[in-house]
Amino acid sequence: MKKFLQQLAKVSEEQTLPRFRSSLSVDNKLAGAGSPSFDPVTEADREAERAIRAAISERFPGDRILGEEFGTTNPDAPDGWIIDPVDGTRAFISGVPLWGTLVGRHEGDAMVAGLMHQPFTGETYVATAEGAWLIHNGLEHALATSSVERLDEAKLLTTSPRIFGEGTQEPYDRLEAACRLPRYGCDCYAYALLASGHVDLVAEAGLQTYDIAPLIPIIERAGGVVRTWDGQSAKDGGNVLAAANKALFERAAERLAG
Amino acid sequence: MKKFLQQLAKVSEEQTLPRFRSSLSVDNKLAGAGSPSFDPVTEADREAERAIRAAISERFPGDRILGEEFGTTNPDAPDGWIIDPVDGTRAFISGVPLWGTLVGRHEGDAMVAGLMHQPFTGETYVATAEGAWLIHNGLEHALATSSVERLDEAKLLTTSPRIFGEGTQEPYDRLEAACRLPRYGCDCYAYALLASGHVDLVAEAGLQTYDIAPLIPIIERAGGVVRTWDGQSAKDGGNVLAAANKALFERAAERLAG
Repeated sequence: MKKFLQQLAKVSEEQTLPRFRSSLSVDNKLAGAGSPSFDPVTEADREAERAIRAAISERFPGDRILGEEFGTTNPDAPDGWIIDPVDGTRAFISGVPLWGTLVGRHEGDAMVAGLMHQPFTGETYVATAEGAWLIHNGLEHALATSSVERLDEAKLLTTSPRIFGEGTQEPYDRLEAACRLPRYGCDCYAYALLASGHVDLVAEAGLQTYDIAPLIPIIERAGGVVRTWDGQSAKDGGNVLAAANKALFERAAERLAG
Repeated sequence: MKKFLQQLAKVSEEQTLPRFRSSLSVDNKLAGAGSPSFDPVTEADREAERAIRAAISERFPGDRILGEEFGTTNPDAPDGWIIDPVDGTRAFISGVPLWGTLVGRHEGDAMVAGLMHQPFTGETYVATAEGAWLIHNGLEHALATSSVERLDEAKLLTTSPRIFGEGTQEPYDRLEAACRLPRYGCDCYAYALLASGHVDLVAEAGLQTYDIAPLIPIIERAGGVVRTWDGQSAKDGGNVLAAANKALFERAAERLAG
């Protein structure tokens, strides 16, 4: 499984990396919807998902495949895959190398393996039943979260302090105020840094399943906890809190609760 | 000069890269001052500045050298160097590869050459009287800013929407609201992305001279404009606005002015 995830990293990289920092056509999914949101779709997104789907279908025919761009294949199969070909599209179109390609495998409702690949920096984060690793420059590093258990020692990441809305802004601000150091702008890279022990908390709101499900095995095998703000499974997205350990998760969840 | 700047990139990298994502002692310059700010000093900071100062003193004895960590050497010399060994210390301690080593050369008051080096991604941005380049994977790419002249097409970067204070928050918010896409969390890397044409505007407040002076030649030789919000030289820091071109600078400065 580890080798297969690395193969998916490679086939997706062939589609994303040549398009990163090049001129590319940017559509706007929400154009015409009168929305102030900006949700660009790039060729990289579409071609990477096509390549990943093809590789999965060849190796695991009949599996369910859910992707951000092309919906769900074999929707009734119990086991399958969840794909976000370019998580952090805004980072991608701004030249910031903190986006990533996400692929997760589920067996029933359980997320059992995951991949986060950042081809510009050459970082591949993988998790299987056996463990979680960063593969970088040909070396494998076992991932382990930090031992920070106090909020006032915790480094907190979120994509933007302005992603929050009614009902989530005030709780987020309360959590940020209790932490040692907030930092913004990381998308999926935030969870990889948490699994690596460099930061201690990630809080986000309004995630889709493909934004977070592939990262669950990476965080959990590294020793971390990732759930919704109210302690439910994060597999289906929503408001997500990830912490380096159970004690820190509980303190952060308490702060979010008020 | 280009080769010498690359040499400085190399000697600083030997001090910073091995300490990035490792456990390291983090002091707090402001500890005891009762300040909510967090301004860590790392061994990487100190050792990189020592190495850069040594290389400059050997090649340009008698030059003025101003560095973030060790003050000013030969303060009365007209020509010299401005160093920020690790710009983006918070990124550094969070494992985010968007910090950089900054070195600028001035002749009198004019910034004539500059370096921004990010060793984890292997990106070296240099500018001399002859031009500005990104050196990456052994290839030289000439830097050129974007041709975006309208605010509603502009991608805007800043380190954090919460770095602003009384007198700057409201103008910044006004500018952000007029732009196509804001993004946070880049420190010096933001200016490198502007010089590369990937983003169109950078706005920050309360910069020190070493935060911005080394970047001025990189931005200007790439075709951009960098000044204070009220149009003065950015060499001494302050509230800084960088734009891809003169038309966009004027529109953004107008918006900041009210």
